[in-house]
Amino acid sequence: MAHEEGNLNSFASILGNDIAIKAYREGRLPFPDGAIIAALHYRFIPSAENNKAFGRDQSCVAGAPTNVQFMVKDSKKYAATGGWGFGHFNSDGKTVDDAFMKTCFPCHQKMKERDLVFTRYSP
Amino acid sequence: MAHEEGNLNSFASILGNDIAIKAYREGRLPFPDGAIIAALHYRFIPSAENNKAFGRDQSCVAGAPTNVQFMVKDSKKYAATGGWGFGHFNSDGKTVDDAFMKTCFPCHQKMKERDLVFTRYSP
Repeated sequence: MAHEEGNLNSFASILGNDIAIKAYREGRLPFPDGAIIAALHYRFIPSAENNKAFGRDQSCVAGAPTNVQFMVKDSKKYAATGGWGFGHFNSDGKTVDDAFMKTCFPCHQKMKERDLVFTRYSP
Repeated sequence: MAHEEGNLNSFASILGNDIAIKAYREGRLPFPDGAIIAALHYRFIPSAENNKAFGRDQSCVAGAPTNVQFMVKDSKKYAATGGWGFGHFNSDGKTVDDAFMKTCFPCHQKMKERDLVFTRYSP
């Protein structure tokens, strides 16, 4: 899970396929080929109904879905971008252009010591 | 997912068994017997390494696990508490006393219109 503030203001649930989760659990880096990590992004919104029940403003929950992003590990196919292929699917069905997709790798590359993966494993 | 501020300052990932997820998807209320909902709670902490990569303070992630809570639906067995049995397991292995457990139902009861379940389904 992750919450990004600022203009993103997003709430993310991050999932992995069996290969990715196994690597996470074993602390194996780099991730092996075949690993897939998915990030389900939603708006990060206050919950008026929860706050009413709790008697104070404390609760933030997932709002409308915004997009789903994927990282797919294939060290040969995606050699030019650190072995990872990046995918982005807007929840409204609109596609994103190449310029948008070219922003994935430069940012993820900053997390080189963890094989470009921002999300840590939550046991 | 949910983030609770204030003295809780928690980050929760909420999961359901097949019966619970099916009811969620169908918008079925009350939840049928056999439904189980689990809440995995963590600390809600800023991520210094993510913020460094992003170049600004924006990222909050799951910190140390704190507890796992369960709601188990059995309308006969748990008739006295709205048909739900409540479970709480601290991540440090310490048990909680009866007085603690008696606080679950009164608060969840405030969400009577959604069968005592705070978490909405995120598609």
